[in-house]
Amino acid sequence: MRATLMYGAGDVRVENVPDPKIQNPTDAVVRVVRSCVCGSDLWPYGSMPASEEGRRMGHEFLGVVEDVGSEVAGLKSGDLVVAPFVWADNTCDFCTEGLHTSCRHGGQWGPNGVDGGQGEAVRVPQAQGTLVKLPVAEDSALLPSLLTLSDVYCTGHHGVVTSRVAPGKSVTVIGDGAVGLCAVLAAKRLGAERIILMGRHTDRTDLGRDFGATDVVPERGEEGIERVRELTGGDGTHAVVEAVGATQAMDTALSIVRHGGVISRLGVAQYTEIPLGFESMMGNITVTGGAAPARAYIEQLLPDVLDGTVEPGRVFDHTVGFDRVPDGYRAMADRTALKVLIQP
Amino acid sequence: MRATLMYGAGDVRVENVPDPKIQNPTDAVVRVVRSCVCGSDLWPYGSMPASEEGRRMGHEFLGVVEDVGSEVAGLKSGDLVVAPFVWADNTCDFCTEGLHTSCRHGGQWGPNGVDGGQGEAVRVPQAQGTLVKLPVAEDSALLPSLLTLSDVYCTGHHGVVTSRVAPGKSVTVIGDGAVGLCAVLAAKRLGAERIILMGRHTDRTDLGRDFGATDVVPERGEEGIERVRELTGGDGTHAVVEAVGATQAMDTALSIVRHGGVISRLGVAQYTEIPLGFESMMGNITVTGGAAPARAYIEQLLPDVLDGTVEPGRVFDHTVGFDRVPDGYRAMADRTALKVLIQP
Repeated sequence: MRATLMYGAGDVRVENVPDPKIQNPTDAVVRVVRSCVCGSDLWPYGSMPASEEGRRMGHEFLGVVEDVGSEVAGLKSGDLVVAPFVWADNTCDFCTEGLHTSCRHGGQWGPNGVDGGQGEAVRVPQAQGTLVKLPVAEDSALLPSLLTLSDVYCTGHHGVVTSRVAPGKSVTVIGDGAVGLCAVLAAKRLGAERIILMGRHTDRTDLGRDFGATDVVPERGEEGIERVRELTGGDGTHAVVEAVGATQAMDTALSIVRHGGVISRLGVAQYTEIPLGFESMMGNITVTGGAAPARAYIEQLLPDVLDGTVEPGRVFDHTVGFDRVPDGYRAMADRTALKVLIQP
Repeated sequence: MRATLMYGAGDVRVENVPDPKIQNPTDAVVRVVRSCVCGSDLWPYGSMPASEEGRRMGHEFLGVVEDVGSEVAGLKSGDLVVAPFVWADNTCDFCTEGLHTSCRHGGQWGPNGVDGGQGEAVRVPQAQGTLVKLPVAEDSALLPSLLTLSDVYCTGHHGVVTSRVAPGKSVTVIGDGAVGLCAVLAAKRLGAERIILMGRHTDRTDLGRDFGATDVVPERGEEGIERVRELTGGDGTHAVVEAVGATQAMDTALSIVRHGGVISRLGVAQYTEIPLGFESMMGNITVTGGAAPARAYIEQLLPDVLDGTVEPGRVFDHTVGFDRVPDGYRAMADRTALKVLIQP
């Protein structure tokens, strides 16, 4: 089958790799119907040292079950399923607590002989715990939105839940990428009164407004901080969702969060420390969030996606087939595409 | 009246200062019956640059109301009252949310013409919002425990509440000072299953065991981390209460908190940043806590103090009169006293 590998910064290739087969009785094999490129893929795309082996890419996909191991219950060939961006047994203590990203028997897509999602098929370890059945057909118009349950919509939701967004609360979302926009959508869904979106790509912030942003702040750094403070009477917002991962974004977050407020970090941390000293302590600022346990959220977010109440799939503005996956990476890196859907 | 001033590192003096009088209609004047030295006073005691004016000290006291301004309702001369370690109106939006430390009309004891608590009397701004009446007599044996509602017991409780300690949960308390020991007591009261106390002063950790610690770890740094990990099957604890404020203590906290767990910081931050990078993000670690809104907790913690269910006043192991306040500081700095009660 064909699959996507990254060999270094800017070097993405689609190559032939062995077809996946059941290796363990807890595996399933899924034929990929839709996958996509993640904003987090852009970090290695910008900086990965050259490698001879390459790295299997992709951690978001939905597809059709083709085969299941002998210990996989509840799934059968032909089922359409979505996979969260880490696989997990859904039964260990961490999973039971809703923290599937720390599953004792789970892991990531790509390394250690596990397929990546940006391929024609995937061997899914811990398939029974990992995969969630989707009650639609393989040609459903809902597939893009359903695919966001793999990562970005669940991740945005995680940021909003962990930062305690609720009716009457205000939230600033830093970053107008797919995760930031999904955080706006999730904040709106949970009743946030005010949703400030910090981003400067008009086409993205326009979608952010459609998703529920009440204010858009294109300025960055000190200017952006000043602007959010003006909008909030000097206080900042109850919640801040940091959906970039850069040092400046985290510095901004600390300057615009209200006393007693919560910063949830979703952007893959490119920083190694956060300037949380005396001042943030006096203000009782909380820093939370992290890798979203998407699996814990899929069932609860699914109904609103199925009935069209929310359309997180609107973050996909570009579709490529397998031959053009490298173009998809380039388009996202150049910011000419917001999020790229891969349709085999 | 006499009051305590600090003129620089190691230089504490008791001097005559003007008697407090009502200045604003929202003031009260309280004759101090008990006050004390705080672990946080030791930071300036160790490092304050020499000053000609001196700094009024003390932020924990209880006493008898002597006079009230015309706008103070619910308090009258003769009432025994306890003051939280910041004064607050108890009506603004922050106070209503339980964050009295960020009160829009509140402030600290000591600076800007406000008396410190380590004196014979105190003018209390925003008296109606700040003071809480105590239903005991001035000679009650409960005074030491009631005085801890000013700061250390409420602060320990804040650490435990914000780190989500609950029945079945495990918590590590870093630091065997008065706040750390009160956090142990508060964790026990809230039903923590396992309470690991990190501290190496045996007399203090013995009290910690009395307060509810199930394990004591005297080691620090890598050894201490290793020990807590051993005790918890490698996972760390659900909650960590950091009651020191030093860089090493925060580094330890990050190494012993379980995935999905919460670090609450109570120790006055001597660090300016926390190494919260990629790893803590993948583990969904939360950092919270801060200056405790003691006023928000006093009424709920009071009943158990009054009926003797808890005895946080046991943290006081040394009592001085006003003439010997400097000795009290020295004893705490030398670690020969755990916490020093001042009895005028």
